[in-house]
Amino acid sequence: MQPEAHLNSLFNPNSIAVVGASRSPLKLGHIILSNLVTAGYRGTIYPVNPAGGEILDLPVINSIAALPKPPDLGIIVLPRKQVLAAMEELAEANVSAICVISAGFRETGRDGFELEMEMAELARKKKITLLGPNSLGLINTTIGLDATIAQAKPTKGSIAFFSQSGALCSAILDWADGESIGFSKFVSLGNKAGISEADVLESLGDDPETKVIIGYLESVDDGQNFLQTARIVTEKKPVIMIKAGTTQAGARATSSHTGSIAGSHVASTAAFKQAGIIEVDNLESLFDLARAFAKQPLPEGPNLAVVTNSGGPGILAADACEAVGLNLARPSQETLDKLTQALPPFASIYNPIDIIGDARADRYKATLEAVAEDTMSSAILVLLTPTASAEIVETAQAIIDTAKTCEKPIFACFMGDQRISPGRDLLREAGIPCYGYPEPAIQAIAAMYTHYGWKTRPYPVEVCFRRDKGKAEWTIKKTRKIGLSELPFAEAMDIAAAYELPVPETRLVRTSEQAVRAAKKLGYPVALKVVSPHLSSRSDVDGVALNLQSPRDVRDAWLAITSRTQRKRPDAYITGCLVQTMGPVKAREVIVRFTQDPQFGPLVSFCLAGPSSEVLGDISYRLAPLTLQDVQDIVREIKSFPLLRGARGEEPVNLAAIEDILLSMSQMATDFPDIREAELNPVLVDAEGALVTDMRLTIG
Amino acid sequence: MQPEAHLNSLFNPNSIAVVGASRSPLKLGHIILSNLVTAGYRGTIYPVNPAGGEILDLPVINSIAALPKPPDLGIIVLPRKQVLAAMEELAEANVSAICVISAGFRETGRDGFELEMEMAELARKKKITLLGPNSLGLINTTIGLDATIAQAKPTKGSIAFFSQSGALCSAILDWADGESIGFSKFVSLGNKAGISEADVLESLGDDPETKVIIGYLESVDDGQNFLQTARIVTEKKPVIMIKAGTTQAGARATSSHTGSIAGSHVASTAAFKQAGIIEVDNLESLFDLARAFAKQPLPEGPNLAVVTNSGGPGILAADACEAVGLNLARPSQETLDKLTQALPPFASIYNPIDIIGDARADRYKATLEAVAEDTMSSAILVLLTPTASAEIVETAQAIIDTAKTCEKPIFACFMGDQRISPGRDLLREAGIPCYGYPEPAIQAIAAMYTHYGWKTRPYPVEVCFRRDKGKAEWTIKKTRKIGLSELPFAEAMDIAAAYELPVPETRLVRTSEQAVRAAKKLGYPVALKVVSPHLSSRSDVDGVALNLQSPRDVRDAWLAITSRTQRKRPDAYITGCLVQTMGPVKAREVIVRFTQDPQFGPLVSFCLAGPSSEVLGDISYRLAPLTLQDVQDIVREIKSFPLLRGARGEEPVNLAAIEDILLSMSQMATDFPDIREAELNPVLVDAEGALVTDMRLTIG
Repeated sequence: MQPEAHLNSLFNPNSIAVVGASRSPLKLGHIILSNLVTAGYRGTIYPVNPAGGEILDLPVINSIAALPKPPDLGIIVLPRKQVLAAMEELAEANVSAICVISAGFRETGRDGFELEMEMAELARKKKITLLGPNSLGLINTTIGLDATIAQAKPTKGSIAFFSQSGALCSAILDWADGESIGFSKFVSLGNKAGISEADVLESLGDDPETKVIIGYLESVDDGQNFLQTARIVTEKKPVIMIKAGTTQAGARATSSHTGSIAGSHVASTAAFKQAGIIEVDNLESLFDLARAFAKQPLPEGPNLAVVTNSGGPGILAADACEAVGLNLARPSQETLDKLTQALPPFASIYNPIDIIGDARADRYKATLEAVAEDTMSSAILVLLTPTASAEIVETAQAIIDTAKTCEKPIFACFMGDQRISPGRDLLREAGIPCYGYPEPAIQAIAAMYTHYGWKTRPYPVEVCFRRDKGKAEWTIKKTRKIGLSELPFAEAMDIAAAYELPVPETRLVRTSEQAVRAAKKLGYPVALKVVSPHLSSRSDVDGVALNLQSPRDVRDAWLAITSRTQRKRPDAYITGCLVQTMGPVKAREVIVRFTQDPQFGPLVSFCLAGPSSEVLGDISYRLAPLTLQDVQDIVREIKSFPLLRGARGEEPVNLAAIEDILLSMSQMATDFPDIREAELNPVLVDAEGALVTDMRLTIG
Repeated sequence: MQPEAHLNSLFNPNSIAVVGASRSPLKLGHIILSNLVTAGYRGTIYPVNPAGGEILDLPVINSIAALPKPPDLGIIVLPRKQVLAAMEELAEANVSAICVISAGFRETGRDGFELEMEMAELARKKKITLLGPNSLGLINTTIGLDATIAQAKPTKGSIAFFSQSGALCSAILDWADGESIGFSKFVSLGNKAGISEADVLESLGDDPETKVIIGYLESVDDGQNFLQTARIVTEKKPVIMIKAGTTQAGARATSSHTGSIAGSHVASTAAFKQAGIIEVDNLESLFDLARAFAKQPLPEGPNLAVVTNSGGPGILAADACEAVGLNLARPSQETLDKLTQALPPFASIYNPIDIIGDARADRYKATLEAVAEDTMSSAILVLLTPTASAEIVETAQAIIDTAKTCEKPIFACFMGDQRISPGRDLLREAGIPCYGYPEPAIQAIAAMYTHYGWKTRPYPVEVCFRRDKGKAEWTIKKTRKIGLSELPFAEAMDIAAAYELPVPETRLVRTSEQAVRAAKKLGYPVALKVVSPHLSSRSDVDGVALNLQSPRDVRDAWLAITSRTQRKRPDAYITGCLVQTMGPVKAREVIVRFTQDPQFGPLVSFCLAGPSSEVLGDISYRLAPLTLQDVQDIVREIKSFPLLRGARGEEPVNLAAIEDILLSMSQMATDFPDIREAELNPVLVDAEGALVTDMRLTIG
């Protein structure tokens, strides 16, 4: 569905009909009306209930048809069997947007699913923006609109939140209340029959009241659309998300929750990375980061200055920095001189700057003034433990004063509870994020620096790779015609050639003598590989011999390979063997693969060959089409990358050659959604270049 | 130093002298006196100050010599230059224990270090229990003793805390106050000139008031002693620790903090594992776990039942369970029947049991009653979000009621802030740990289950391995005599034989013709390996040829190897080559190694051969001597273990053969602390057995 621009009738309605408004204070149809009234919404509210009368001093309209004017937004709080009819009446009455609070649809099984499909169809036909069903509602603090069934009231602020879980929303509102975090918009997506996370994201991206977007998702409906939208939004403001159902246990729980399929975690994580979304794996981090992004500028470098009155937390901060890839900046000589003068002799003027336990606010102030001017650091973290000498409120004030003139972001970590709380509250009011432990503060700073990197990255270059698409198309058609789903080797190699992948010269031969003749033509050394339509992996039958140097070697290998294959897989018909020129002998072996993810489309993966990559999960993923930046990232992201870069004095391999292959495969995946899976395994790569020695293609 | 039994005069003094007591309320010499008085200590307190008079209504003694009776404990709060003299006077006066609050010693450089050494020497000679210097003091809530300079007062409880960071203590006291966590003992270790973490741990292990011990350490002084002590203590009660300075950045910060050397992180982590200590990597987890251990019994299985009124948090809980290795138990049929009856149709009766957003307390109660009786789960986690229908206090009460008769541990996670706080407070008072997010709750449950596994593990069997120690000793002596630090191959193999390691038959030969003759004697196939005292690794010069099948192969290989070595390392003298019988060809290659850690002694490591293990850090460590359990753990702990167990239908390798080799190496490391490093690389292992094909030994 193409929703109206910015979901305007949903977020900024001039009038609202509450269908199912109730007099009974415990009913949702009363709670939502009460929220609308008390939050100070200034448009017109029409409670609709056949009983008529008055609720909360508002005159009740006894049917939708009797509404005096078409409302912008209709909210439905009815038993599920009455929802569709109410939607139809609202459509008749010309509403622009409908929010369905009622539950009992897709999440409850087949009947509910079908009902929900009818609602979605109706909304589509009538061009109505539909939120829900099974939504907790929405909030727009800018116009005092609280159309939710939650009990806590958010204050106005610059964070927008959207969530696929309704009950979670109520927890978050309550939490935000206690932490004096304010929201701009608040949307409970519900079952997403109408508008999706991408629609909401787009709208929030354009919302001038929103500085940071945070979201909770269990599933993504149209992955490619979401990716495109998110890419645009993250150029404008940070998007922080948590995706639940990332493990098998979680995915099982998800499908019984909203009836959605959790989808592949690697695909969504790749999508988030490519879209510049900051993904976190727990709720606490979601809020820790939101607070930092909402209140402080982005650090423009990875160097952090830590000021502390306690050595221990300073060390923990240093540990945490290294874990997330931040550095502790060495202060400039000028700063060192200032600190030497300002601090007692036993203080540590290097970073972490330990101004020791008897520090009062003035010592913090002098230190902060020196550090604020030091260009060696890009962000400041101030740690305080409530020692006997600590002046907590005064220190908070010193931090606030420093922040006023300092262009770097400043963060605080006040450790403790009741004694430090006046300082913490003062800091939070002044927009300095204050954490209870060093680790979350440093995680937040690291995320902000990552986002800075995203915003300042080179303009993304999408590459359209040269290829003979027609030839590949014809080859696939031909294969499909003869009823195969996996392409025979020769056809796979034709497609490789069409995409200009570097393949070795290869001959398919039927006898050992043919093999010897082929080897002579190709030139020694050669490789010999068994071919059978019944084998999914040659290594299972030990069906490969490498580096054969002579006719005798080839004959011996032929005998060894074919007899091993027959012994291990008596059911497999042996077509023959391939004779190939050998690739570089001391090369690294890598694997390039793509599959089609049901939610996100073509998913390209990269790893070193060998069983360890899979066992250790050292595989990187990106969604096609890949940009130049993506291919560089996917190669460098695997933990084994040092082996390609040249560990222990070895020569680095030709990374550009790998990147070209990745781009070709990305192009192939994009050109042919009906190639279900393609695998180059292995690709040999050394300092000179790369060679694709085997390719498998499966069509859908 | 051997401290007195249970540090009795320190924790339970009948009388205390405060040397450096002060009238000025801002001075530490006043704060500590004031803490002693107000905490309700009932022994005698002697303020000592040459000025005499009265402080806080106590008569001041004007010198240590003038004390009417020898106090059990002397506390020194003087400028550092006066500390040693005061200690001498206290020793004259026959004190049993001294706590030095004053700072300015080891942590400030050489002068301070030497002063501290004199203090330590004095304490040792006079058999005085010395805490500090640079200590914040200590607390024993059992007798109302608060001998600290911190400002918050801990309530009585069952958690004991010790810390190497003083200022951190003040943060923790303040934090505990806010969370109504009580302490039994509280010790700030300071610079550890006298008693160490091991002494304190031993004393807390025997303390009947202490149920859980938590600690913060930056360095461990005598690793083996600490390990032995901790092993005994963890049999009695859980010990949870955080070690700071685990990264390079952190270690640098540590050495400038307490002047201690952080030491190798892998060694301390191995020690913690072998001692049954639960290691956490951030402060928040330290407290999250302490709370759980202090209040709930241990879960006796990995199966968790999750009850929730909100799907989203249920999914996050499921994700978190899988991440830490807990299972979501499938409820028994009986429970499913009960739940079907008790819950509305759209609830999910499987685990997580989602009783949906309109649940009130009675629905929680019915569900909990069913789950409490179900033997399929070993622990229960109750999630609540403050929905419009949630009855927060009543739900808390239902959980408390269930816990009264339920033998399984019960944990709660109430999400939100102000609305849920009355429920959270009620739960905490009743001893039900209540968290703000699902993840920390599940981490705590997982840690408790790990501790259950530790307590119920089979009795640890230390293995003394058969070996010819005399022969090995003689070989090492001989090598040392000729001035070598690395043993020549033949000598290394002699030691391998003395420890009954499975080594291949090997001949050292000088010419290619000798090699052919040796190969004939050993039987083909053979391996050929270059020997030179100047090469630290054969792979650098490509100096190994494997699987040689014929005299021609041997001659070719000889030429290839020696010429490559000469070309790549013209400076290396080539002694000759080794001819060896080949190990199994399709074997996995593993590496067994030990080094001597300066703090913890012999450290054995295990990994797969190949560059990936190092690059990916997939190496496991344990301290020698290894128990049978240790060798099983060290082999199974590497992430690549599936490759040894037989991934993808392969036969598993002979794990017992690897374990025997590890035990032999552990024995060797224990027998010879002057073997600085030993490496078996590679050890070939297949389904049949293992073969050590190369061994390098360096002596110190």
